[in-house]
Amino acid sequence: MQFSEMSREELLAMYSELKTEYEQIKAENLKLDMSRGKPAADQLDISMDMLKEVVGVYDCKAESGLDCRNYGVLDGIPECKRLFAEMLEVKPENIILGGTSSLALMFDFITQCMLKGAGGKPWSEQGEIKFICPVPGYDRHFGICEFYGIKMINVPLGADGPDMEAVNELIKDPSVKGMFCVPKYSNPTGITYSDEKVRALAAMKPAAKDFRVIWDNAYAVHDLNATPDRLLNIFDACSEFGTEDYFVEFTSTAKISFPGGGVSCIAASDNNIKMIIDRLKYQTICYDKLNQLRHAKYFRDLQGIKLHMKKHAMLIAPKFEIVLEAFRNELGEYGLAEWTEPNGGYFISLNTTTCSAKRVGDLCRSLGVVLTKVGATYPYGIDPEDSNIRIAPTFPTVPELKKAAEVLCLCIKLASIENLV
Amino acid sequence: MQFSEMSREELLAMYSELKTEYEQIKAENLKLDMSRGKPAADQLDISMDMLKEVVGVYDCKAESGLDCRNYGVLDGIPECKRLFAEMLEVKPENIILGGTSSLALMFDFITQCMLKGAGGKPWSEQGEIKFICPVPGYDRHFGICEFYGIKMINVPLGADGPDMEAVNELIKDPSVKGMFCVPKYSNPTGITYSDEKVRALAAMKPAAKDFRVIWDNAYAVHDLNATPDRLLNIFDACSEFGTEDYFVEFTSTAKISFPGGGVSCIAASDNNIKMIIDRLKYQTICYDKLNQLRHAKYFRDLQGIKLHMKKHAMLIAPKFEIVLEAFRNELGEYGLAEWTEPNGGYFISLNTTTCSAKRVGDLCRSLGVVLTKVGATYPYGIDPEDSNIRIAPTFPTVPELKKAAEVLCLCIKLASIENLV
Repeated sequence: MQFSEMSREELLAMYSELKTEYEQIKAENLKLDMSRGKPAADQLDISMDMLKEVVGVYDCKAESGLDCRNYGVLDGIPECKRLFAEMLEVKPENIILGGTSSLALMFDFITQCMLKGAGGKPWSEQGEIKFICPVPGYDRHFGICEFYGIKMINVPLGADGPDMEAVNELIKDPSVKGMFCVPKYSNPTGITYSDEKVRALAAMKPAAKDFRVIWDNAYAVHDLNATPDRLLNIFDACSEFGTEDYFVEFTSTAKISFPGGGVSCIAASDNNIKMIIDRLKYQTICYDKLNQLRHAKYFRDLQGIKLHMKKHAMLIAPKFEIVLEAFRNELGEYGLAEWTEPNGGYFISLNTTTCSAKRVGDLCRSLGVVLTKVGATYPYGIDPEDSNIRIAPTFPTVPELKKAAEVLCLCIKLASIENLV
Repeated sequence: MQFSEMSREELLAMYSELKTEYEQIKAENLKLDMSRGKPAADQLDISMDMLKEVVGVYDCKAESGLDCRNYGVLDGIPECKRLFAEMLEVKPENIILGGTSSLALMFDFITQCMLKGAGGKPWSEQGEIKFICPVPGYDRHFGICEFYGIKMINVPLGADGPDMEAVNELIKDPSVKGMFCVPKYSNPTGITYSDEKVRALAAMKPAAKDFRVIWDNAYAVHDLNATPDRLLNIFDACSEFGTEDYFVEFTSTAKISFPGGGVSCIAASDNNIKMIIDRLKYQTICYDKLNQLRHAKYFRDLQGIKLHMKKHAMLIAPKFEIVLEAFRNELGEYGLAEWTEPNGGYFISLNTTTCSAKRVGDLCRSLGVVLTKVGATYPYGIDPEDSNIRIAPTFPTVPELKKAAEVLCLCIKLASIENLV
């Protein structure tokens, strides 16, 4: 029976029971964290041999003969560029490799647009500029805009991508300079943009000729099951419209090898690659080529990465299932929330329907369960509906996760009754 | 006998002999490179065990128990911060660790000053701004200024540091926002700032309150012999004047472990650390902690680094000596050049006294010997005297270096006679 159909007395009786449960759990002094999309230790164990690979052969030479220990090669060693090129279905010459963090590559790119422009005047000299943010989205994207005072405009993210009617209306404004997209297994909803949406994005005619989409393909190969999503290659889509320069793609091996020691990557049009290299040659001499070599030798090719990702999926798919199972049993039948069941990525996105998400976050915290800060999935930390909760199920162990899911469901029930009575 | 004292006939006779030598060398089709301060392969071999260290113990945990493979720890793991803190004689809390490149840390810092300011208005909103550049200096420093259109002003670098009279005059101008210093084993002259100069710098009273010195201590532990230079700790010197915020120090292990896989570092005042972290938390999640762990485990402490640097010195001190010996024998007695004999660092700086350095560079290139682009040691690539040549003796092998030094001396003689007759 749905909570909304229960009488006040029924709800209060249930509240009393739930409160007892709450007190019992409180006494357990839990300390559980479902806040960030971090791999668990057993996932990281999968890649340990990579740390031996370069050393094992006692050979730090790239296939070109280049000594990876020394200076040089601004854009990355060829075999590692090839690996990413295969993964992102682009040519190796349209790839630049970075350090551990693709976020840093995005930040640096937007910084460059701010100070030097993207073909036009520096963004920082164009008065107030704006970015389109499909919501819910990734808080660290929003953080970059906040840091630079770029005004963020929410656009609803549906089950197959952003609301293109809204997007096409917004880009008539020349002060709208860009957009954030996580096109595959979107953070946090886990949806993948449909071919139609990708084509519609590629067909955009922004008033700003220095418009740039941060195409954050963080979960390009992060499938969870036998029915993975398929993302249309953005650059293929663009070729029809000649809009390649509007899109800059980013990814990394953070959640393939090691978040604290992976390799990041940019894929972009010839023009954008040139623009980025023209800055990079002043910014650095090279990124870590030994780490690039480790990755290239360990994975060899896309096939190697895919096999590797199956091992990740074996560890994390059951964790997703634990959370989803709890939601179905504890929330679904009471009509307390809606959620996504993604085929990949790192998150489950839940929307409360009968209570404040903030209140749920507070209750969970009081029981020692940390969720992603409620509101963080929206620009400026403001969820207008106060309903979205991002669940990151990978980091806790299975028993921890069961407990955390139980606590979350309990807290949603408590908050819902508080709200309804 | 000095060339300047020889008769025209004597010079022409000598020219003819040298020209024969030139043609013989040309026939050898040399391909030698003394252009960049790159370690040679045998130097990199010294550090190979580092690549085994983390893996060897199959343990990627920092001493705090933190799993270095995963996300987190923006400023670097404690044991690696401690290592750099000991090296730079500052507190660990005044250290931030970066990726492989200290140049990137400098670039990012200046970028931040441009867009967000250093306590005042963004530098980019203050009209034309200027940087003081002691010359000769490091081309990649100058490159950052050129990229951002920061006007560079030359100040002579003497045997014990910059001309402070000139510096103190320049900083009366509030548009002078900063200065580049390589205070120890300066690139390229190899000199170390005297205590007096360091104190005079610390005592500066710039009109610009958002003035920042890029204190690039790249060669902090890069001694070549038993009489190393000693650099006064800039932050100790500043404490007397309360000027800590004017200085941001940078270093890296590029020339300690691996240029293509080292760890870089910032040391700065509490205020500057806060300012940098306030940006970094938007820019990245973490730098490569596995590499930080490798370095911390391998070197352990400053003593470990010092022992390690002695091995480098054993390999490269003889190379410096080869070049200096050639200069003494082939140039000194003829009065054709002046040069430095540094106690550390990566360069020998030579000034021609009787010919154009550009002409020497061209002649060397025609014989297959690549020098650092003549002029590169000055802002905008313009050496007003056309006399400075930066010699990087570390990368070639000993036989290559002997040949390259021979070629260089020959070309200086040829160019000098061309100039004198």
